[in-house]
Amino acid sequence: MTIHAVGAGLDTIWVVLTAAMILLMEGGFALLEAGFVRHKNNVNIIMKVFADITIGTLCYYFIGFALMYGNDKFGLIGTNGFMLTSHPSHLNLHISLDTFWLFQAAFVIAVISIVSGAVAERIHFRAYLLFVVFMTALIYPIAGHWVWGNGWLGKLGMQDFAGSAIIHTLGGFSALAAAIFIGPRKGKLGPNGTAAVALPSNLPLASVGAFILWFGWFGFNAGSTLTATDGRIGHIAVATMLSAAAGGAATLIYTLFRYHRADAPSVINGSLAGLVGITAGCAFVSSQAAIFIGAVSGLLMMFAANWLEARRIDDPVGAFPVHAVSGIWGTIAVGLFASDGGLFSGGGWHLLFIQILGIVVLSFWGLACTWLSLKIIQLWMPVRSAPEEEEVGLDISYHGIIAAYKEHDFINYENRYTKMEEMKMKSNPQPDE
Amino acid sequence: MTIHAVGAGLDTIWVVLTAAMILLMEGGFALLEAGFVRHKNNVNIIMKVFADITIGTLCYYFIGFALMYGNDKFGLIGTNGFMLTSHPSHLNLHISLDTFWLFQAAFVIAVISIVSGAVAERIHFRAYLLFVVFMTALIYPIAGHWVWGNGWLGKLGMQDFAGSAIIHTLGGFSALAAAIFIGPRKGKLGPNGTAAVALPSNLPLASVGAFILWFGWFGFNAGSTLTATDGRIGHIAVATMLSAAAGGAATLIYTLFRYHRADAPSVINGSLAGLVGITAGCAFVSSQAAIFIGAVSGLLMMFAANWLEARRIDDPVGAFPVHAVSGIWGTIAVGLFASDGGLFSGGGWHLLFIQILGIVVLSFWGLACTWLSLKIIQLWMPVRSAPEEEEVGLDISYHGIIAAYKEHDFINYENRYTKMEEMKMKSNPQPDE
Amino acid sequence: MTIHAVGAGLDTIWVVLTAAMILLMEGGFALLEAGFVRHKNNVNIIMKVFADITIGTLCYYFIGFALMYGNDKFGLIGTNGFMLTSHPSHLNLHISLDTFWLFQAAFVIAVISIVSGAVAERIHFRAYLLFVVFMTALIYPIAGHWVWGNGWLGKLGMQDFAGSAIIHTLGGFSALAAAIFIGPRKGKLGPNGTAAVALPSNLPLASVGAFILWFGWFGFNAGSTLTATDGRIGHIAVATMLSAAAGGAATLIYTLFRYHRADAPSVINGSLAGLVGITAGCAFVSSQAAIFIGAVSGLLMMFAANWLEARRIDDPVGAFPVHAVSGIWGTIAVGLFASDGGLFSGGGWHLLFIQILGIVVLSFWGLACTWLSLKIIQLWMPVRSAPEEEEVGLDISYHGIIAAYKEHDFINYENRYTKMEEMKMKSNPQPDE
Repeated sequence: MTIHAVGAGLDTIWVVLTAAMILLMEGGFALLEAGFVRHKNNVNIIMKVFADITIGTLCYYFIGFALMYGNDKFGLIGTNGFMLTSHPSHLNLHISLDTFWLFQAAFVIAVISIVSGAVAERIHFRAYLLFVVFMTALIYPIAGHWVWGNGWLGKLGMQDFAGSAIIHTLGGFSALAAAIFIGPRKGKLGPNGTAAVALPSNLPLASVGAFILWFGWFGFNAGSTLTATDGRIGHIAVATMLSAAAGGAATLIYTLFRYHRADAPSVINGSLAGLVGITAGCAFVSSQAAIFIGAVSGLLMMFAANWLEARRIDDPVGAFPVHAVSGIWGTIAVGLFASDGGLFSGGGWHLLFIQILGIVVLSFWGLACTWLSLKIIQLWMPVRSAPEEEEVGLDISYHGIIAAYKEHDFINYENRYTKMEEMKMKSNPQPDE
Repeated sequence: MTIHAVGAGLDTIWVVLTAAMILLMEGGFALLEAGFVRHKNNVNIIMKVFADITIGTLCYYFIGFALMYGNDKFGLIGTNGFMLTSHPSHLNLHISLDTFWLFQAAFVIAVISIVSGAVAERIHFRAYLLFVVFMTALIYPIAGHWVWGNGWLGKLGMQDFAGSAIIHTLGGFSALAAAIFIGPRKGKLGPNGTAAVALPSNLPLASVGAFILWFGWFGFNAGSTLTATDGRIGHIAVATMLSAAAGGAATLIYTLFRYHRADAPSVINGSLAGLVGITAGCAFVSSQAAIFIGAVSGLLMMFAANWLEARRIDDPVGAFPVHAVSGIWGTIAVGLFASDGGLFSGGGWHLLFIQILGIVVLSFWGLACTWLSLKIIQLWMPVRSAPEEEEVGLDISYHGIIAAYKEHDFINYENRYTKMEEMKMKSNPQPDE
Repeated sequence: MTIHAVGAGLDTIWVVLTAAMILLMEGGFALLEAGFVRHKNNVNIIMKVFADITIGTLCYYFIGFALMYGNDKFGLIGTNGFMLTSHPSHLNLHISLDTFWLFQAAFVIAVISIVSGAVAERIHFRAYLLFVVFMTALIYPIAGHWVWGNGWLGKLGMQDFAGSAIIHTLGGFSALAAAIFIGPRKGKLGPNGTAAVALPSNLPLASVGAFILWFGWFGFNAGSTLTATDGRIGHIAVATMLSAAAGGAATLIYTLFRYHRADAPSVINGSLAGLVGITAGCAFVSSQAAIFIGAVSGLLMMFAANWLEARRIDDPVGAFPVHAVSGIWGTIAVGLFASDGGLFSGGGWHLLFIQILGIVVLSFWGLACTWLSLKIIQLWMPVRSAPEEEEVGLDISYHGIIAAYKEHDFINYENRYTKMEEMKMKSNPQPDE
């Protein structure tokens, strides 16, 4: 046994195990989103997560990965590595190319899952499937190339350790664009235009989703070293933990004093905001800074959620406040607090400026490409569910499931879908459910 | 610190961590099965999983492991290593014997959990407990010996990397035998003999079960190297991911076009079928072949489910289609696609023939032994629940639980079971629930 | 790449991954407890777990860790390492100080989560928040110092590998004190003083919680080596598995014969009792002893639960029977079975005496400090919920959530809390729910 073999094995299992943890986050997203939306759309939102992980994985394998990590052309796009058939020459990895791909695939699935929540309860399922293809084959990979794939933003010196910018800000702005494009859910706007809230249908489920996401985040952030001998791993994990705790604690205490209630959805999303906020800087900032970043992430998330409500933008699970707002703050915070180059560490304004430039570029890219993709999809098919589909629920409309949590007598196997159609017709649901 | 100590530590934590991941799959099985069966049997099916992990573990410790991995007698059976008190001389491990046992114990629990789903909602609980003993002490260990424990099939050259054949095909045929033996659930066959379906009672739970199983599968397949310095680990994980994605995508797209719905249970089981299908070949086939194997696994699973319905065989969670059918296909696919020895890689027919022979032997062994075990158990006690037990639900009949998801006023502690009996009598449930 | 770098990387990822597994146990606690308590308190109990992980983490960072692991003063308390700003000189770690902190933080959160279950459904939320501060900043860290932080009990030779005593017995006695202090839930005592039980509201959730805890326990016990090259890791994991299996099997078989039912809550808690029982001795006792320890843990847990009922002490999730009773037994069992120093291994009475001394001290410390803390908190605010808060449920009273699993029509965003107040008033719940 050589030291080289042991070191290579160590790096490989580190990346494989952390990739598996990130992939488990899809279970977390599914629970979180299902817990936030109404029962009649629970299966639908989970099927979107299945679409993310099945179709998204294949798109990234056939196309996306090469555009992101292939050999660079003009600082804009990668050009080889489709189906992992060639090894981009600039990648200097401790691990095999396919192990690296697995980790990156787990990331792309996270990006599209961010969007899935914002369009909950009203996007047409087939349109969503097409959007998965756009996002995982093109939109995210191209932007990812700019920062992580030897592209122009990375060359300028942008720092985004595990993706506050690339993954969360881009995903969050894509979520915003999609939420605006398809409009609010029926009933979201009251008769006189006031915003209304649909209470979460299953907060215990959503909470467990958050704990699973928290667990996976250790893989997300610490695994991003891509080597187990990186001396920063322990610190990264600690910064992640502290920021999440601070995000949750800040929202818990804030809502307790402001509203006299520890608001459960806010605490859940506050913890997640803390995790998003530290994702860019976990390897670069001190643990004290991590607590500050996390606490501010939690509070900004709350203000952003209120802002969205005031703007009558309907984002059922809070994808934009959690991912985009905390992502922006976390990316900028690197420019402020990074031990090496941060403004408050005496590094001057250069890094901060680059970080802001990167955020602006990625936000605009996420917004514009999502809008354009949905416009293109709309040429072929409706993007928004039909009113009656939305009324009866997307579970029955797109998946033939009458009710996620209700059971029925045995029904004839051959005619099961027809039978369910009839039951759907008969059920004649009231507007409030 | 010596290189030997570091290497040994690395292998140990790799196997311990992946074994823990496989054991977490029991939580996945519990959720998946509970989500598929009716509410009145939810606690019962989870208690069966607890029986698998508690009683199964002990049986494998006292008896099964020695029969499987003990020193070989006639190519048929192992003969030492009971209670881990001796180290079989042929095992040439990088890790300690008990670490190896832990990983194998996680496997045996998976096998019996496959069966638990097929007999859902109608097997007598005590009979099931006895069957757990038969399976984990005898049926699986002996067959496992033939392939993995220095037995005759392994010596012939059968290739089954992480158990498409030994675990999934054997478990799936055992499930089939048990499902036929105890017959369909009351109400499953309509008045004129037509098959009927009971809709899943909680698809969100089942979905999360699938994500947990997916996570655990990285441990299942990649951990089967039993050493962290095996250069194939990254590829194994990637093949696993791609096959699962292809299985889920194939069923998603197929049901979308065939039935105009993305059928949720099919997508869930399609992903699992992709995972089962690649389990034999993950270390031997290319990533392109993995996608093909996964997609075919998903589609075969669907056809097999329809075939079971047409044959009036009641397998409530699809254990046979998911595990046996995809397992057979995956094992045969090794004979077709293996880089070393596969038919399409120029390796000729030899490996393919051995693989088919192995599959036939293991299928027959699973069927026959399960049938025989249940016959023996039937000499002592009923194997099938009494009609009234099935009617009121196995939760109240065997576990004194009135309703898994409903709550009741405080009831007297001393007389709690009697009280619940009364409530059960009073409840007088209708046939449809 | 040097052997030193590889070894350091290996130890670091081992501790980070196992710490993440322990932190995932918070999701397990949340599910377990939510499944055991009534629906109207489901969100509340999960919010307490969020308080544990957010506020507890920060308290341990700012204060607790230094008291526990700082340089020793008089064998009683640690004195440096606040905010990880200095490295206690006696700590001789293979890993970085912050990595070590992360692992210990995961432990402290487990301790407070034990208490959260015992006070379910009736503690005032703000009082609980304050108690989290007491426990994570003071009570546990000081006691922890005595055993693990170079304090007097450790110097006497007390053996508590992963915390049967420090974590589970202390946590369990704290739970007992708190349960007695705040008294039983309304309705728990019948009109003539007889104890009554509230049936678990969601056993499938609770079961999955148990599986997640089981998974995390491999991190808990095996990770406590703090180095991956400790040759005992495999054995620790196996002992953990066997004890859990024995605890679950013992309760399953006992309840099957005693009550003619496999009692689901008992089997769940029996498995957990087996895990608690082996936590002290997993590195010191044989695998046969592990089975014995686990089986006895399961049975003692049942007897202790009956004893609590007879004493009219209300512990809704069984925190005392599972954690304190099995913890005591497990700690004493080390004195009996430890290969090195155990009574039955010819080591004489010395170790056994020390173990009993430690248990007595830690139990009393847990009881007394908890009582005192709650007394202090009571000077500022009520510790027990108001009767009407308890009646309508803590979810609506403290978190503004009308019903964890029910959904309502869209309601006006600005006035959402007021609106919910009104609905709360109108709902006028009956005593039985």
